[in-house]
Amino acid sequence: MSKDNEEMVVTPWEVRGKLDYDRLIEEFGTQRIDEKLLKRIYKITGEKHVMLERELFFSHRDLDWVLDEYEKGNKFVIYTGRGPSGNVHIGHLVPWIFTKWWQEKFDTRLYFQLTNDEKFWFEQDLSYDEVKKHTYENTLDVIATGVEPENTFIINDIEHIDLLYELAVQVAKKITFSTAKAVFGFENSMNIGGIFYPSMQAVPAFLHSWIYGEKTPCIIPCAIDQDPHWRVTRDVAEKLGYYKPASIQNKFLPGLQEGGKMSSSSPMSALYTTDTTKVARKKVMAAFTGGRETAEEQRKLGANPDICSVFMYYDMLFMPDDKELADIEQKCRSGEILCGECKQILAPRVIDFLEKHQEKREEAKERIHEFSASRLRDDIRR
Amino acid sequence: MSKDNEEMVVTPWEVRGKLDYDRLIEEFGTQRIDEKLLKRIYKITGEKHVMLERELFFSHRDLDWVLDEYEKGNKFVIYTGRGPSGNVHIGHLVPWIFTKWWQEKFDTRLYFQLTNDEKFWFEQDLSYDEVKKHTYENTLDVIATGVEPENTFIINDIEHIDLLYELAVQVAKKITFSTAKAVFGFENSMNIGGIFYPSMQAVPAFLHSWIYGEKTPCIIPCAIDQDPHWRVTRDVAEKLGYYKPASIQNKFLPGLQEGGKMSSSSPMSALYTTDTTKVARKKVMAAFTGGRETAEEQRKLGANPDICSVFMYYDMLFMPDDKELADIEQKCRSGEILCGECKQILAPRVIDFLEKHQEKREEAKERIHEFSASRLRDDIRR
Repeated sequence: MSKDNEEMVVTPWEVRGKLDYDRLIEEFGTQRIDEKLLKRIYKITGEKHVMLERELFFSHRDLDWVLDEYEKGNKFVIYTGRGPSGNVHIGHLVPWIFTKWWQEKFDTRLYFQLTNDEKFWFEQDLSYDEVKKHTYENTLDVIATGVEPENTFIINDIEHIDLLYELAVQVAKKITFSTAKAVFGFENSMNIGGIFYPSMQAVPAFLHSWIYGEKTPCIIPCAIDQDPHWRVTRDVAEKLGYYKPASIQNKFLPGLQEGGKMSSSSPMSALYTTDTTKVARKKVMAAFTGGRETAEEQRKLGANPDICSVFMYYDMLFMPDDKELADIEQKCRSGEILCGECKQILAPRVIDFLEKHQEKREEAKERIHEFSASRLRDDIRR
Repeated sequence: MSKDNEEMVVTPWEVRGKLDYDRLIEEFGTQRIDEKLLKRIYKITGEKHVMLERELFFSHRDLDWVLDEYEKGNKFVIYTGRGPSGNVHIGHLVPWIFTKWWQEKFDTRLYFQLTNDEKFWFEQDLSYDEVKKHTYENTLDVIATGVEPENTFIINDIEHIDLLYELAVQVAKKITFSTAKAVFGFENSMNIGGIFYPSMQAVPAFLHSWIYGEKTPCIIPCAIDQDPHWRVTRDVAEKLGYYKPASIQNKFLPGLQEGGKMSSSSPMSALYTTDTTKVARKKVMAAFTGGRETAEEQRKLGANPDICSVFMYYDMLFMPDDKELADIEQKCRSGEILCGECKQILAPRVIDFLEKHQEKREEAKERIHEFSASRLRDDIRR
């Protein structure tokens, strides 16, 4: 598990240390989503979104430009993705849930990339059969977010390589090993697939423009750790005749255990989409909180929601109502509510969320082909 | 043009200096094709081949093993290829002509790879449109060698990436940048496509086994400069459950000018398959020979066929009859024939060769699809 005093490291393949999002904005050179930008967004969407309100989405590149273009009638496409190295947890769903909302509000197309080549290359012990299985399972989770096939194209890198390689070849020519080493920290022990991989992650940012022969803006909602990819993608974009992709970036949903991100090496820290009711309840009830040693002490002194994973789950996902959240915060700080009681409020919400997701996940099994990027094959201009 | 005193460098992307094939056998760790092996080959083929007789094909890896397997009834497939960076010259045809003979005699399948991704990545100034054009033009030359579609599958890396990527992904995981750097001399300024590329060149060695789910030996006829690729391919083969590919390797057909290989930077040095009769004759007549300063001197002292490009063309391609060759050598050394006369013998042979090739090249335009590796798509075991 990450230690708070550990140096912060945020790369597409490693996140550790105490996360300082202000520093990430500065180091990565992204922009904060400010009040003015929020107002512009809401003017178009007609409604607020809890993940913007609570600053779970906090940073961006060129989002203002994308809105300018949108207002001029130049619609964008959305691109996001997932590296299928294992089960999907609720933290992974954060950008996908937001993406679905964004897609609906702007009525536009989504390209969702499943980077099975990446995961096979970067996870030494992951077998090819395992990565195929995860690709299938994770696709179900994408569909279960409720996206519609008319506007959603799920790209599986290996299966749809015929749609991607011509562009990847052109991207790859523009990126030297020196650059990849500097941006991603590659060592000489990295395999040559992993070194090539950034070209593949760049492709969907240009894919729509390439397929339809029309330069189209693209915005990428995703966790902030992927930003190095977009820096490289933006560097090559104009050289290849495309727009630089914009992005809108989220913080990590914290783990249920103390510190860090949800982690598959610490199973109790993460709520997986396939967790049973029983397991999910157990994880919530065992969650790390800002409570006191004893009930008596807590009644007297109150607890600390600022470090409490249960409160963060309310904040970011499970308590969109501002009044309800303020109320529980007050009860927490005053000692009016104990952590056990508070978890009893979160648990049914989590379970309800998972049950609905799992139901849609089951239905998705019959619908995978409807979302396949293979439908794009006929659209490619020749 | 290469200088004879320059240090010998032989890599898949650079050949310069005076070529010492004995040293290459030693440095690359290949085996010489000896009399015993030749006899084994001829026992099966039932006829000799001038390129073996004259030691144009001089080196191999595991050819004896391939013959063992063949005699046990375990047939091999053949794999060779071409990097489509420009026009094809007669030097390029050497392994293809031999390949066709080998394919006929052993009655087996040929996979011919056109590595357009490679050439795009390795030739900084080559545009994507140019590489596509070369791919098409070079495909005509392959077909013009007279191969038959029933047994010949021409793979275009970018167009047929769907047939190659799943294997390439698995190969790439087994090769680190350190290895690629050591084997190919990659610098940090190499683009990340070029670094990935060795995985792509390995794939056709395993493709047949992968498609049909049967471990099948593979032999690669090709110029010796490609050997670094086969070393890497052999290293990963068994880890992926395939046989190590065997190879049978040829020397370079020398340029018509003094020293070195045929080179596109020195157009008079190379006979291109699309050269007109007039141009071809001009090139032959301007060729570097082992002649003397004056006719008088030559009549008296004789000339030196050992350094003569015209003689080498006889030896390697245009004078398969041993008696005729011995006769002309004797006439050359004795001063009985002058270089001009001798070139008048070569020129019509070259022109005849080119005219026939060009005719078949024209016919090939209507037949490209018959040879396409796309036919393999339906055969892939799923």
